[in-house]
Amino acid sequence: MRTLKFGLIGTGYMGKSHAIALHSVAAVFPLSVVVECEMLADITAQQAAVKAKEMGFSRATGKWHELVNDNEVDVVDICAPNGLHKDIALAAIKARKHVYCEKPLALNAVDSLQMALSAEEAGVKTMVGFNYIKNPATQLAKQIIDSGEIGDIVHFRGTHNEDYLADASVPMNWRLKRATAGAGALADLGSHIINVAQFLVGAISAVNGDLNTVIKERSTAGSVIDKESVENDDQAHAMLRFNSGAIGTIEASRVAWGRKMGLTYEVTGSKGSIVFDQEHLAEIQLYTSDQKTSRQGFKRILIGPEHPDYQNFCASAGHGVGYNDQKIIEVRDLIEGISRDQAIWPDFRAGYEVALIIDAIEESYRLGQWVHVSEVDSKTQSRLLHLEHGKEKN
Amino acid sequence: MRTLKFGLIGTGYMGKSHAIALHSVAAVFPLSVVVECEMLADITAQQAAVKAKEMGFSRATGKWHELVNDNEVDVVDICAPNGLHKDIALAAIKARKHVYCEKPLALNAVDSLQMALSAEEAGVKTMVGFNYIKNPATQLAKQIIDSGEIGDIVHFRGTHNEDYLADASVPMNWRLKRATAGAGALADLGSHIINVAQFLVGAISAVNGDLNTVIKERSTAGSVIDKESVENDDQAHAMLRFNSGAIGTIEASRVAWGRKMGLTYEVTGSKGSIVFDQEHLAEIQLYTSDQKTSRQGFKRILIGPEHPDYQNFCASAGHGVGYNDQKIIEVRDLIEGISRDQAIWPDFRAGYEVALIIDAIEESYRLGQWVHVSEVDSKTQSRLLHLEHGKEKN
Amino acid sequence: MRTLKFGLIGTGYMGKSHAIALHSVAAVFPLSVVVECEMLADITAQQAAVKAKEMGFSRATGKWHELVNDNEVDVVDICAPNGLHKDIALAAIKARKHVYCEKPLALNAVDSLQMALSAEEAGVKTMVGFNYIKNPATQLAKQIIDSGEIGDIVHFRGTHNEDYLADASVPMNWRLKRATAGAGALADLGSHIINVAQFLVGAISAVNGDLNTVIKERSTAGSVIDKESVENDDQAHAMLRFNSGAIGTIEASRVAWGRKMGLTYEVTGSKGSIVFDQEHLAEIQLYTSDQKTSRQGFKRILIGPEHPDYQNFCASAGHGVGYNDQKIIEVRDLIEGISRDQAIWPDFRAGYEVALIIDAIEESYRLGQWVHVSEVDSKTQSRLLHLEHGKEKN
Amino acid sequence: MRTLKFGLIGTGYMGKSHAIALHSVAAVFPLSVVVECEMLADITAQQAAVKAKEMGFSRATGKWHELVNDNEVDVVDICAPNGLHKDIALAAIKARKHVYCEKPLALNAVDSLQMALSAEEAGVKTMVGFNYIKNPATQLAKQIIDSGEIGDIVHFRGTHNEDYLADASVPMNWRLKRATAGAGALADLGSHIINVAQFLVGAISAVNGDLNTVIKERSTAGSVIDKESVENDDQAHAMLRFNSGAIGTIEASRVAWGRKMGLTYEVTGSKGSIVFDQEHLAEIQLYTSDQKTSRQGFKRILIGPEHPDYQNFCASAGHGVGYNDQKIIEVRDLIEGISRDQAIWPDFRAGYEVALIIDAIEESYRLGQWVHVSEVDSKTQSRLLHLEHGKEKN
Repeated sequence: MRTLKFGLIGTGYMGKSHAIALHSVAAVFPLSVVVECEMLADITAQQAAVKAKEMGFSRATGKWHELVNDNEVDVVDICAPNGLHKDIALAAIKARKHVYCEKPLALNAVDSLQMALSAEEAGVKTMVGFNYIKNPATQLAKQIIDSGEIGDIVHFRGTHNEDYLADASVPMNWRLKRATAGAGALADLGSHIINVAQFLVGAISAVNGDLNTVIKERSTAGSVIDKESVENDDQAHAMLRFNSGAIGTIEASRVAWGRKMGLTYEVTGSKGSIVFDQEHLAEIQLYTSDQKTSRQGFKRILIGPEHPDYQNFCASAGHGVGYNDQKIIEVRDLIEGISRDQAIWPDFRAGYEVALIIDAIEESYRLGQWVHVSEVDSKTQSRLLHLEHGKEKN
Repeated sequence: MRTLKFGLIGTGYMGKSHAIALHSVAAVFPLSVVVECEMLADITAQQAAVKAKEMGFSRATGKWHELVNDNEVDVVDICAPNGLHKDIALAAIKARKHVYCEKPLALNAVDSLQMALSAEEAGVKTMVGFNYIKNPATQLAKQIIDSGEIGDIVHFRGTHNEDYLADASVPMNWRLKRATAGAGALADLGSHIINVAQFLVGAISAVNGDLNTVIKERSTAGSVIDKESVENDDQAHAMLRFNSGAIGTIEASRVAWGRKMGLTYEVTGSKGSIVFDQEHLAEIQLYTSDQKTSRQGFKRILIGPEHPDYQNFCASAGHGVGYNDQKIIEVRDLIEGISRDQAIWPDFRAGYEVALIIDAIEESYRLGQWVHVSEVDSKTQSRLLHLEHGKEKN
Repeated sequence: MRTLKFGLIGTGYMGKSHAIALHSVAAVFPLSVVVECEMLADITAQQAAVKAKEMGFSRATGKWHELVNDNEVDVVDICAPNGLHKDIALAAIKARKHVYCEKPLALNAVDSLQMALSAEEAGVKTMVGFNYIKNPATQLAKQIIDSGEIGDIVHFRGTHNEDYLADASVPMNWRLKRATAGAGALADLGSHIINVAQFLVGAISAVNGDLNTVIKERSTAGSVIDKESVENDDQAHAMLRFNSGAIGTIEASRVAWGRKMGLTYEVTGSKGSIVFDQEHLAEIQLYTSDQKTSRQGFKRILIGPEHPDYQNFCASAGHGVGYNDQKIIEVRDLIEGISRDQAIWPDFRAGYEVALIIDAIEESYRLGQWVHVSEVDSKTQSRLLHLEHGKEKN
Repeated sequence: MRTLKFGLIGTGYMGKSHAIALHSVAAVFPLSVVVECEMLADITAQQAAVKAKEMGFSRATGKWHELVNDNEVDVVDICAPNGLHKDIALAAIKARKHVYCEKPLALNAVDSLQMALSAEEAGVKTMVGFNYIKNPATQLAKQIIDSGEIGDIVHFRGTHNEDYLADASVPMNWRLKRATAGAGALADLGSHIINVAQFLVGAISAVNGDLNTVIKERSTAGSVIDKESVENDDQAHAMLRFNSGAIGTIEASRVAWGRKMGLTYEVTGSKGSIVFDQEHLAEIQLYTSDQKTSRQGFKRILIGPEHPDYQNFCASAGHGVGYNDQKIIEVRDLIEGISRDQAIWPDFRAGYEVALIIDAIEESYRLGQWVHVSEVDSKTQSRLLHLEHGKEKN
């Protein structure tokens, strides 16, 4: 069997999750290649060496450029902060590496488009880490929708709320600054629920959103006196119109006290509904209109071997999957997509489509009105052309 | 003790619910007056007589004008279809009766304002039947918010979804026509959740909404061939901005398969959150930020004797209240408000404030942008002046 | 229409609940008689008079004997403490009154049998207030079981847990003494879940139980020094064998912290299951084995107009019923049973059948082994004969 | 670092789960040894070779004796059917291997005791695969109980119900025969909930149980005519008395329609309660008696980084763990127990303690009365002595 060697950049929360997935995937799924954890990049060579040992990577480096250009590395896996995604990805693409990048793809739609176009041009495979759509439960929801069991979709309501910044005493960090994070809750959490909406209901044609920064300034890290302005949204919500005619809303918040994994959705169709809550990630609620009136109700379906990708984890229904299992499925999709030269979803193009919606929501907020996604798409393409033209001229 | 005699107009679903409440209230709550079910009006004298016997009213009439002008009747209780609310209420006010009217108050804000002003001028008491805010659980939510336990409110999400018109084969009826119902789901169900939002979070300053008629035509009742256009929304949602700075969303649908009593809300504050679902009407979920991290979570509080108005129904916590119990509390508020000459809420003024939001949402939908409620208020006042001026001239 | 005049003894928690039901029932259900709240008995004439006014009864007395023998009273309604049930009921039966008695019927099976036999001999109607089986949701469970939808019942697990005596500092009261209460949690709460088991699964043939008094002594009311022994169980559980071959367990506790209305059951059949929790009293969970594997799950059925007795409260599904609504259904069954001279269930005979199980569980606890209900029945009959013979001799 | 080489016997459902855990554990937890998947045994050499490749083991064999006696193998991991546990384990112990064995440890208490004594004598480490107690949520429950937060435990109710044999048309298999499986649901599922009870509440002093075989015969596999008798229980329940004075019940069923992972427990203490449901494996419900009456309720605590072993899987609360994550924790406990020469729990001694309760419940069922666990322990020891003496004589 061929081998596929991964170079991972970043050793934080997501870096570890990727490492677990890469080490576990072959035990869960039959693969057509051998996965190797080849190289790890961290801020310093020393820290990288320590982490490489801890996380089971063969080699280490303090410079991501080295990893990106290393001859042995087949796939560059980007778990660095959002602000670095673009540079690393473009360098990796230039070096003809496949790229696996955490979400959101970049700080804005222009950068995302540039990354997607570069990858497409180079013919490398890409994937963005929107792991929640890999959950067997959400795959089941998609299957049910595609089968027509709940008819034509007429409404979608999605949320991704957490409370990791609800405490006003949490000091300033990179997530709260435009230059390092782009949008706030809208990008960090909203990107997930936008991706879910597109996965389940299809393309979004227009948006109309509202944003709010609840905690407007935070103390400078390490200081008890200095304060800095928060530069992006704590909470966001938007109304959506889909190409299909369905309408909907999404909501994202990082100040939603009590919500730890508040990714939820409710999809209503002309013949039924699906309700999902990621805090109970191994089940969906299904209502179909074909039930006898006196026996109608939402049915709680526990995920089991009959549903997508569950059987490889466990042969018995209802035993549950966890957060990292979603990542294992994601990594499987990536590996097999590369190995078999098949389409991968969500790739950078899909990452761009999420970024477009984020930009469009921000614009609708500034304008106070509906914004057509196709217009933001056109503008983004123009801006990118302009930028590249400018660069060429220089 | 003085007596307070009720004249009830309408013998459908809501009429019966009012009758139950009027007959039960004195057994539940100590009252300062004796309540009497004096007269019932229905479409014909004959049917009214039958129903009066069934529903425990002393007298009956086929003409609501007679009831409204009957000397014995102290309170006119309007459970007739929405399109009749205004005429009956104005006649009752003219006859110096107190008026208890089902929601929505009228077909639009102008009519609602006219009713509120007439009542205020006449000095009669009024109440609109937004019974869900009388639920002890929602009263508890209000109490918690007012106490500051969850801090300043930063977000509200509310829904009132049902599926009573989700079946496309349900024929045309009065609820689907502009002239008899005004707005669709937005008025019928949305009025409740708007009222809840105002009750819990305060005045709404601006709205931005979207509407959709999912089932665009329905068969004419009794015909298998003829079709008629549905003239109002099947589903509605809107983004809200409150005077306080909080933002939020509301959603209403009559085509939400599986939802039978889908009135829900989630109120997020700077120090905690409250979650409520009317399908489990005797409890709230409360999260407060003062919990030890390793012991934090939403607490499910079952309504009990320590909470508003529960003790009069039952001395033990968690035994539950039902739909009609909310109506009993509402009727108690009305009766005591009249008897003790105290403010009643929600009165016709509050009904107008709900109607304003409905009108504003419809306008924001037409314009595709935010609409300030104060502007709709000004326009509504102008229109009413203009109308009354026009009438005077005639 | 004929009238049916009630005489109510006891003005506590249950007395009030009965009063609410008697005043409300005619507004909810079409009745074949007019119900009148004729007379109220309390400990003193003065208190009775005050309460009669408050609770809407025409006359009052400080002596229950007067009420029982009053010519106007048709139905004697016993909401006095358990220890008085027998004497009042026997006196009422002697006076040829119909008797409506709160649960448990008496302090033990012998007394319960005596009451049942007396009533049967006198030909008066009786009812015991096991209101939870009147809940539309539990009636629906019964309907589903009877229809065969979940096949032959193979297992039953029921609980009725509350925490009203979990606090060890609650002082001694009549519920904790043998002479006034009989058994402890087993009688007060266990009687309900035994009744539910018999209602849903049929006659119990053998029991094997365990009892425990967790808080063995409590302070004498009003004293900070004196302590008294608790004389009955704080928690009880038992294994059951039904005549049908099904097996099961029941559990009752008055020291189950956190449980306010912890009456729950799970009924498993050869073709499906039903799960119920009285804290969510307006729904059941139903699982049937005929579902496609990939779409199988428990269905949450919200009670609606298609289900027993709901429509009279509300025309829309899922709007909910409350604690007192169960009592209204119970009272309707009583009134119509009397008026139409039809069988009433649960009558005193059914109350005796519950008492038999309580006695049998206590005996199995003493013996540490299974006890056949038929043997306890025989012994109870013998004891009663012996007692009556003894009396006759005196 | 030292290496620890595993030899795995069995390639079914549990074999795969062990393989996933062995391959993943080093990526999740920092270990003091390197884990190697050295050898895999299956029924034939050929199948073993195929599976070894699939499951990531270096070598393969068709004879478990070879694996057990292989010089490279440090730990023998037994995922073979129950009836083989004893022979394999004794051989492994004889070869001075550490032994990791799936539950139930053996077909009865005598065999279990023999295995425990052999291991203790040989000084090898052992572990039994009761993975549910490794769930961070159940570890949290244990932590809360040990801390005294819910006071002295007074009651335990546990279930482990599934429906994998509820369908009467499922043919005969080894789980239904005494010789290959021992007890039925009581051993297969009941062993888990017994282990949970002992983990959370401590030693059980006496039991009193009931058993039932619902589906008494099943078709011979592959035949449409022949039927065979089911030789063990489909459902079991028992009353328990703990050494501490607490009482409780457990229940196990393999015919509980709708239950896929129905391991649940409710632990009541003198100061609070904990409720858990393995179908929502990443949370517990906690009630404490120190809450203000008007704000009291069960709190839903989502497992997070502050709780046992969660942080190594994920840095954010509420993101969830899955079935295999429990196995990863179990394997970590085994590996570190061996590497650091520390006590492991549950070891074979703990497996024997579970087996004792199973035997005691079966005996109580035969006798129809309470059985003291200490007496079953004595008898088991005698029987084992007798057996060994017999063997020696031969």
